Amino acid sequence: MISKSVTKFIKSLQIKKYRNQHQAFLVEGAKSVNELLISDFEVTTILGTSVFLNENINLIRYKKIEVFESSEDELSSLGTFKTNNSCLAIAKMKPNQKLFIQDKELVLGLDDVRDPGNLGTIIRVADWYAIQKIICSENCAEFYNPKVISASMGSFTRVKIYYTDLESYINNITVPIYGAFLEGSNVHDMPMVERGGLIIMGNESKGINLYLEKSINHKILIPRYGVAESLNVAIATAIICDNFRRKEIAMH
Amino acid sequence: MISKSVTKFIKSLQIKKYRNQHQAFLVEGAKSVNELLISDFEVTTILGTSVFLNENINLIRYKKIEVFESSEDELSSLGTFKTNNSCLAIAKMKPNQKLFIQDKELVLGLDDVRDPGNLGTIIRVADWYAIQKIICSENCAEFYNPKVISASMGSFTRVKIYYTDLESYINNITVPIYGAFLEGSNVHDMPMVERGGLIIMGNESKGINLYLEKSINHKILIPRYGVAESLNVAIATAIICDNFRRKEIAMH
Repeated sequence: MISKSVTKFIKSLQIKKYRNQHQAFLVEGAKSVNELLISDFEVTTILGTSVFLNENINLIRYKKIEVFESSEDELSSLGTFKTNNSCLAIAKMKPNQKLFIQDKELVLGLDDVRDPGNLGTIIRVADWYAIQKIICSENCAEFYNPKVISASMGSFTRVKIYYTDLESYINNITVPIYGAFLEGSNVHDMPMVERGGLIIMGNESKGINLYLEKSINHKILIPRYGVAESLNVAIATAIICDNFRRKEIAMH
Repeated sequence: MISKSVTKFIKSLQIKKYRNQHQAFLVEGAKSVNELLISDFEVTTILGTSVFLNENINLIRYKKIEVFESSEDELSSLGTFKTNNSCLAIAKMKPNQKLFIQDKELVLGLDDVRDPGNLGTIIRVADWYAIQKIICSENCAEFYNPKVISASMGSFTRVKIYYTDLESYINNITVPIYGAFLEGSNVHDMPMVERGGLIIMGNESKGINLYLEKSINHKILIPRYGVAESLNVAIATAIICDNFRRKEIAMH
């Protein structure tokens, strides 16, 4: 049995206000908790089924973690997943530290990407394409939202996010700045000016805000062959990353 | 005020059993309902705010549609959206008709893609890449699920889906069959054997079922540059479609 105070604390972490107050967040499911345990996040608490705890004893035993054995029903009722047959962890948030773009480094910039599922999927895409930093406007979905963590499939442990005023951030950098628009250079044919840079993706329905547009050096588009009006922002991010990485290799 | 019987009917359509019983489904939000009204689906009922109904009077007036003016609160309480400030429609399902692959036509095959959001996003991707047919295994998410309809952003009106035993379907076709695996030919370099074919995408966690693997002529992979273990299935579909369409143009 999990105590009432632990139950209450875990449930409170489903809400942003309490995550901020406690500077802690939830990680749910075996895949994500496994990645968490091998990451540099500080894990304070783990609730797991006896099967999960036995399988992961070596990842847990040498750390200062509070461990509770829980039933699947308890895990499902405590977390945000409909069903959870393995585990749930609490970890400490990291401070919102400024990220700098290195020479030749490829970085993503998200302008007003609101949907947590989209942000989580973009983090997973970034991790696939070896992009380690994402610069987010302040109105983007919150990194520690359980839906972001879950959709990132463990990639939240490897990709760093920095929330800032995106306009002033991009006005103070000198790397090439790319932006996805419905008009621009076809990303299939676009010559790359140099390796790396910042790729800005815009809001789910409005695209990139007008006040950012003037700072974007290179407008790019994903060629359309059919009729759909637009692509989901995580899908568009992935296609652009795939095209950038392919071109970088061709530049060798 | 909407009558109790209409209310009850609409709410019942949130559940698969009743959708099948009534052979009808829900379409929510202005973008999707607009696309529905210009499609060949038979629309039986529209509930809209006075603003929506006035703006779309020309799309509605010549059709035999039952129209109700509704408040935003009514729309939100009747449908599956958290909030709906425009409209909700009921349309008739189409029969599950066998789809044939034409010479040089590119078609998607989905094996056990369970998540409705993924299926809807894949339909939108297909529509962007001029893919008009999707062959689904019988355990895929249901096309008429409100989450599928909503995630497709209107593309459900243009992309046809056929549910069947995928194994026997692919054993009876002669076009090239591609499958996305974690090992296979790099989709960036892969030479295309001919134009078109069937691209099979597998289950969200298990990939393509073993019993299908032997029928796949061409195993392809999306090159990974970073660390993430896998990509979301809708993301992977989009990247593969982008690579196929680019190669087809290069073949000209």
